[in-house]
Amino acid sequence: MKPSARAYVPFVSVDAMMSLVHRIGLAEVLRGIAAYIEADFLRWPEFDKTPRLAAHSPEGVIELMPTADAQLYAFKYVNGHPKNMKNGLQTVMAFGLLADVDTGAPVLLTEMTLLTALRTAAMSALAAKHLARPDARVMAVIGNGAQAEFQALAFQVICGIDAVRLYDVDPAATAKAARNLAASGLRITSCGSVEEAVEGADIVTTCTADKQNATILTDNHVGAGLHINAVGGDCPGKTELHSDILHRAQIFVEYPPQTRIEGEIQALDPDHPVTELWQVMAGERTGRRDQRAITLFDSVGFAIEDFSALRFIKDQMQLAGITEELDLLADPDDPRDLYGMLQRAAPATAA
Amino acid sequence: MKPSARAYVPFVSVDAMMSLVHRIGLAEVLRGIAAYIEADFLRWPEFDKTPRLAAHSPEGVIELMPTADAQLYAFKYVNGHPKNMKNGLQTVMAFGLLADVDTGAPVLLTEMTLLTALRTAAMSALAAKHLARPDARVMAVIGNGAQAEFQALAFQVICGIDAVRLYDVDPAATAKAARNLAASGLRITSCGSVEEAVEGADIVTTCTADKQNATILTDNHVGAGLHINAVGGDCPGKTELHSDILHRAQIFVEYPPQTRIEGEIQALDPDHPVTELWQVMAGERTGRRDQRAITLFDSVGFAIEDFSALRFIKDQMQLAGITEELDLLADPDDPRDLYGMLQRAAPATAA
Repeated sequence: MKPSARAYVPFVSVDAMMSLVHRIGLAEVLRGIAAYIEADFLRWPEFDKTPRLAAHSPEGVIELMPTADAQLYAFKYVNGHPKNMKNGLQTVMAFGLLADVDTGAPVLLTEMTLLTALRTAAMSALAAKHLARPDARVMAVIGNGAQAEFQALAFQVICGIDAVRLYDVDPAATAKAARNLAASGLRITSCGSVEEAVEGADIVTTCTADKQNATILTDNHVGAGLHINAVGGDCPGKTELHSDILHRAQIFVEYPPQTRIEGEIQALDPDHPVTELWQVMAGERTGRRDQRAITLFDSVGFAIEDFSALRFIKDQMQLAGITEELDLLADPDDPRDLYGMLQRAAPATAA
Repeated sequence: MKPSARAYVPFVSVDAMMSLVHRIGLAEVLRGIAAYIEADFLRWPEFDKTPRLAAHSPEGVIELMPTADAQLYAFKYVNGHPKNMKNGLQTVMAFGLLADVDTGAPVLLTEMTLLTALRTAAMSALAAKHLARPDARVMAVIGNGAQAEFQALAFQVICGIDAVRLYDVDPAATAKAARNLAASGLRITSCGSVEEAVEGADIVTTCTADKQNATILTDNHVGAGLHINAVGGDCPGKTELHSDILHRAQIFVEYPPQTRIEGEIQALDPDHPVTELWQVMAGERTGRRDQRAITLFDSVGFAIEDFSALRFIKDQMQLAGITEELDLLADPDDPRDLYGMLQRAAPATAA
């Protein structure tokens, strides 16, 4: 007997996600996710919020990131294992789920490795739209791993960046990113050092992967008016900026209880002043003070961003062929008769 | 281009889970899961433990239940929505995942609605094996919903129960359970009241679903020597026992920080003495004091039980046709080249 329609959960595979991006267009997907994030940040108080639940091990971390509003519940499973790369695995792998709050029934299961890369880039560019100087046109990208090209393209589409300066400790990573961005319309410069990369940059994105307190940027890299988009410092013991920068910068964060644990500000006193980004978006707090201020988006990635990305994908599900049906939910005719459903599934015995 | 083998996660659907149970045999599955739980409880200190993360709404709760040892990480998504039943949906729906701690890569995704029913029954019977009188042969089951038959069969297989007395406020539920258990070899008695059901019972299992502080059992139902297996009180504001019973009983729990929030003991002072069941299994603490003692397993369901159940399923995966391959993980040839993978998936443009 075939399961009922309620037994099935729509599933978006990696292949389907790539197909979805190509059918809508990457620029439109980045714009769309940024718009969904902005809409959700503007109703920030409506969400159930909690710092993500992290399981740390010597090699990395596995995290669950749940959030919900009154209608939809979302969570993401995501890991962070810097050493994976050497073994041919992604540093960050993810999948996620949307469920109906009223019934608890899942309504969408999807790959989120790609989707996380997209939403992280969209979030970064959205923050910069609110925090960087409006005339910013040049971005340095320090760390040219899996996130680098998505950052460059999101800043092009959402902030009007027209030049990207790439640097990585491994020149092969820079060459890969430069090759991938060759047809983007961005002016790409491959640089031999952090100093060279940040020269003339209005925005600096740091997205390195090592799990350690690194000093990717030091104070003398940071000139007046810069916006720093610090993506890679996102875990206890994993930071990218020298603390002198933090003391000079206006610091903006997603969700302080999580960022105090995971972000660049883990190096600061727990009462060091920070501004919640959603309040800047909502006009409740000032963003950039002036043209010479240094603004820092201490980004760690918060569950509401995944909620927004999942909502965006859910709204594309009418596209033919994007979802397949996953037989994930037991659905007996009489909901109290789970055992009867199991019994009826017994293979017929020979007479 | 087909994704690499690493892109795929083995997936066990509801249909495959039912097939697995029939091929191994339900009794063997219950015994097997109980054995895996016992083995994991005996190494309790090796696990990362945290109370489950619950998102409450007016109609129910959605929970994430993670745990890990040094090798494997597990989590379960599970809801509890008592009103679902009226709308033809399961009260409890679940799915879960095992991942490799060293890489964060998922190694098994599976339905867990059925598996949760199986592991809850196996856990109950395992606890009773350690806590009930060894000569216990008669069990009352109060609440004859989706969990009832699994409880009866687990206690038959694991504790040697030979008679089950059924009661539910809805006689149709009792009739359903009696029908399903007719061929089990258990003596089944359908009862018209709680009083009648508990008459002569050595063990009482309560597994009702209402989200409220109900009084399914009152003090005068509880005679000397009884073992109470309280399954349904598993949520803040959802209990089944009159507090007088709690004051007379030896109370055993899974993980105190979670049970204090969710179990029957939420009605007691936070320092009311309880014994952790794993310590009884390990011989570190006394179980049942004597033949006349009242023992209570204040069961709420803990993540390690799901970990054990998932491990059991993982060890059956060599059975042909149990898993299908889910294209869940983005796996570019060069792990830093996620964007290149996306680019190469672009549909060919016409010349």
